[in-house]
Amino acid sequence: MDIRLDKNAYGKNAIHLSKIIRHPDRHDIRQISVNISLSGDFEKVHTEGNNKKVLPTDTMKNTVYALAKDHFTTSIEAFGLYLADHFLTNNSQISEATVSLTEHCWKRMIFDDDPHPHSFVGGGSEKHETHIIKDHQHTLLSSGIKDLLILKTTDSGFEHYIKDKYTTLKETDDRIFSTECDITWIYDTVPPDPEHLYQAIRENLLHTFATHKSLSVQHTLYAMGDAVLKTFPEVKEITLKMPNKHHILFNLQQFGMENNNEVFIATDEPYGYITGTLSRQGQ
Amino acid sequence: MDIRLDKNAYGKNAIHLSKIIRHPDRHDIRQISVNISLSGDFEKVHTEGNNKKVLPTDTMKNTVYALAKDHFTTSIEAFGLYLADHFLTNNSQISEATVSLTEHCWKRMIFDDDPHPHSFVGGGSEKHETHIIKDHQHTLLSSGIKDLLILKTTDSGFEHYIKDKYTTLKETDDRIFSTECDITWIYDTVPPDPEHLYQAIRENLLHTFATHKSLSVQHTLYAMGDAVLKTFPEVKEITLKMPNKHHILFNLQQFGMENNNEVFIATDEPYGYITGTLSRQGQ
Amino acid sequence: MDIRLDKNAYGKNAIHLSKIIRHPDRHDIRQISVNISLSGDFEKVHTEGNNKKVLPTDTMKNTVYALAKDHFTTSIEAFGLYLADHFLTNNSQISEATVSLTEHCWKRMIFDDDPHPHSFVGGGSEKHETHIIKDHQHTLLSSGIKDLLILKTTDSGFEHYIKDKYTTLKETDDRIFSTECDITWIYDTVPPDPEHLYQAIRENLLHTFATHKSLSVQHTLYAMGDAVLKTFPEVKEITLKMPNKHHILFNLQQFGMENNNEVFIATDEPYGYITGTLSRQGQ
Amino acid sequence: MDIRLDKNAYGKNAIHLSKIIRHPDRHDIRQISVNISLSGDFEKVHTEGNNKKVLPTDTMKNTVYALAKDHFTTSIEAFGLYLADHFLTNNSQISEATVSLTEHCWKRMIFDDDPHPHSFVGGGSEKHETHIIKDHQHTLLSSGIKDLLILKTTDSGFEHYIKDKYTTLKETDDRIFSTECDITWIYDTVPPDPEHLYQAIRENLLHTFATHKSLSVQHTLYAMGDAVLKTFPEVKEITLKMPNKHHILFNLQQFGMENNNEVFIATDEPYGYITGTLSRQGQ
Repeated sequence: MDIRLDKNAYGKNAIHLSKIIRHPDRHDIRQISVNISLSGDFEKVHTEGNNKKVLPTDTMKNTVYALAKDHFTTSIEAFGLYLADHFLTNNSQISEATVSLTEHCWKRMIFDDDPHPHSFVGGGSEKHETHIIKDHQHTLLSSGIKDLLILKTTDSGFEHYIKDKYTTLKETDDRIFSTECDITWIYDTVPPDPEHLYQAIRENLLHTFATHKSLSVQHTLYAMGDAVLKTFPEVKEITLKMPNKHHILFNLQQFGMENNNEVFIATDEPYGYITGTLSRQGQ
Repeated sequence: MDIRLDKNAYGKNAIHLSKIIRHPDRHDIRQISVNISLSGDFEKVHTEGNNKKVLPTDTMKNTVYALAKDHFTTSIEAFGLYLADHFLTNNSQISEATVSLTEHCWKRMIFDDDPHPHSFVGGGSEKHETHIIKDHQHTLLSSGIKDLLILKTTDSGFEHYIKDKYTTLKETDDRIFSTECDITWIYDTVPPDPEHLYQAIRENLLHTFATHKSLSVQHTLYAMGDAVLKTFPEVKEITLKMPNKHHILFNLQQFGMENNNEVFIATDEPYGYITGTLSRQGQ
Repeated sequence: MDIRLDKNAYGKNAIHLSKIIRHPDRHDIRQISVNISLSGDFEKVHTEGNNKKVLPTDTMKNTVYALAKDHFTTSIEAFGLYLADHFLTNNSQISEATVSLTEHCWKRMIFDDDPHPHSFVGGGSEKHETHIIKDHQHTLLSSGIKDLLILKTTDSGFEHYIKDKYTTLKETDDRIFSTECDITWIYDTVPPDPEHLYQAIRENLLHTFATHKSLSVQHTLYAMGDAVLKTFPEVKEITLKMPNKHHILFNLQQFGMENNNEVFIATDEPYGYITGTLSRQGQ
Repeated sequence: MDIRLDKNAYGKNAIHLSKIIRHPDRHDIRQISVNISLSGDFEKVHTEGNNKKVLPTDTMKNTVYALAKDHFTTSIEAFGLYLADHFLTNNSQISEATVSLTEHCWKRMIFDDDPHPHSFVGGGSEKHETHIIKDHQHTLLSSGIKDLLILKTTDSGFEHYIKDKYTTLKETDDRIFSTECDITWIYDTVPPDPEHLYQAIRENLLHTFATHKSLSVQHTLYAMGDAVLKTFPEVKEITLKMPNKHHILFNLQQFGMENNNEVFIATDEPYGYITGTLSRQGQ
């Protein structure tokens, strides 16, 4: 019996890096976490313990810090593409490099409408992400939002679904809709200003969520993806993962009180989990 | 040998509640987590398994949801005080009630400068907290900020400290100063508008952090507490817990490059942990 | 321009369930977390908000609890297969059901070599998992171990790798090797006793890890997968994800002391991340 | 108005250290996390930014690693006492040192009843802790168990409690009792073999939990503390924190089925939180 090594990859994850970008009148602070993963001609590493083609993951980490000095100056997309290219170009044994960057959001402090030159507030769960998969022929660039927590207090219902013997859920035409979503999209080609485009797509997603008359999570998920594809020709495919963070109406009737959609149990688990991918016909 | 039951308390933690407050032109969403802890005449519960004076923690939870309908309408401080009073008044066996509330921050979405009437973005780590400790004579009210992540890229140094045989840290007059801090303060008396006061104290804390020429975390911690006590006569004591989230200069010299305070390793652990309590003399 | 809905799925995650199985002389406690995900004829749910084919995720949750009474009596694999079959059989609009179960480990307390009939210790990170993907023709059954934390203090080295200008890692023929691994394998057919087989495969994996002379994480990963495929004909493919939880030699030389592989900095991040899939030739 | 600096302290937290202890026939692996906190004559650090009496937290970290080589050879209690003494003795400005150590549990692998000389399984949530508070006159030594998750499937009830208008909980004489508890105890004097004593106290706690006919969490908490104080004269005070991890009977009646205490919803939040401290009379 012969054993075959199929897919394999290795790399360094959770490379946490911060950078001060020094302008004459102010500082910017950027904080990112980088994952590097490489695959290629590594069969003998596994089968023989032969490391001569192995670029150590410690070296990958050093490389990210070293290259950040001159090449992490604009978007995480641009830095990620530079990193992927660097590893592919300098290591002929590598056939594919996957680089993922997550940017943690720092907001400049403002006092009396004056932005402070070097002080920031952080701590949001929402993060900007990018993923680059690059081989010697192709580059796949995707960007996305991770852990975006959004909620609407109305314009959301869920009715006319299947009832079977295990159904206890009550229909409602007015509920809280809340989701901590991950949304990623694939670009056709590398856009000239990925940071600006990211902000525009984010705004578009929020606007659809806010204004949509939602008949289900699926219904709004589709509307959000549809609007992005129709507004941004740069985007060829979008995937939305929308866990439903249930806010369950608390039963006040048992105490002789009415609950007119006012008081809810905010729950984390269990949670509905709705996913969908939309793309353009013919692509 | 006789055994004595000293301190004891019981209650319900992590009661997660959301509430829609419905105005004619807009909704507010409030999301809180409530902890209740009671102590009093509970010796026989422990020693005999006699439950006749036990208000079940499940009932505490129900009570929080039921009272939220009519009494959680303004600040978490006001609702917390109402809850503490409710448990003390209705249960003569209770000598002390501790109520803690944490408010999770939802920000209204804004499109083209128009605040949206019912859609929100959440997900920040920063939370507004309040703690009430109440017995039949006294009420202690404290408010605070939890998990406030702040950073400044300059105006911070650390020099002239002790050097011994285990010292490897290098002195610096220019470093990143970042902390995910918990800050709580005790009010003399219940203020008329705790939410407004909270925002003003938060702003004061951020402003001191941003503008202080920091010679150490302790130095800035003290300045922040000092400014709050001097600006807000309502505050009689303030405690600051400021973990030092180190951003460590990456050694680029080993690669023949200079690192002019640009590229850092962002670390979570180990972390410095600095705490201090300030109050007014003579109190 | 036309938009197409590609992949889509929905379900309920994190359905936490415990069950007491009552034997005449003892109780067993089983605790599982279940994820259900369904796909099928759901296009109009997305595009029209038409819910008439939607089985609500709340009903999925109820179904899991209801079916657990009579059908969660042996392995999680058997219960998962029953659940997948239930959803497919009772809902013609569903083309594929994915069911994942994670079992949390409770160990019976033992006093003076006597197993206690109804008391248990839990709290391990290690979990037994199973994943079932089932459509009207095929059933794919995989089992695995999640968050298995293992460590060896010797018989592990890493040498003879590429050195480039960003290399700072020192070669070593004796290091700590620690990994919190996820290992999953696919069965050819449903085995008669999946719980027993799981324990045997787990033992095999630990034994290879313990006794292998490791020249790299990859080298040991391959050896572990290879041994499972050679020992268990029921397994047709195995995937190992082995993050390298680095224990870094602390530099005691700077204090005039020697560190003969004794004192280490135990780190979580950044971490090496090594993955591989092995299968039999010709399959 | 004058401001006073009351309590203040500083130190380093989360110093993660592993050590191989090399015996002729086997290795031991020990993994600990250390927190150091110092207080003393540090007023001017805060008020003037004068650092000349500051031992940097980075130096504390280095010191822990350096001293681990020769002095972390037996129990965490012994190493903690050595560390506390070191900081007090070498820094006259320090009036009090608090040292906390947490040991993460590694279990030796066993194959065919043979303990393996250098391979281990870890990953349990349960940890052994110790806290030392030391000044120039006194040493307070406490030890404890953190995150011990235990469960019993019977011999636990909760009845005859207060009913009021918000009561919905049903009385039961047979429920699951599960708690992830933190238990710490204070020693009169430093015991000769703290590791052995720790294991004996842990066993005693488990045995009481397993065999007690529980009428409430409080009732069992008291019994556990009582038994430790009566069995171990070295212990003068014990504090138990016992969150009630509720397993809630799932309502199968709504589907025409019976649930004879078989199927439960396993919940994390909200949770009951019961605490108590017991000591000997006259102390």
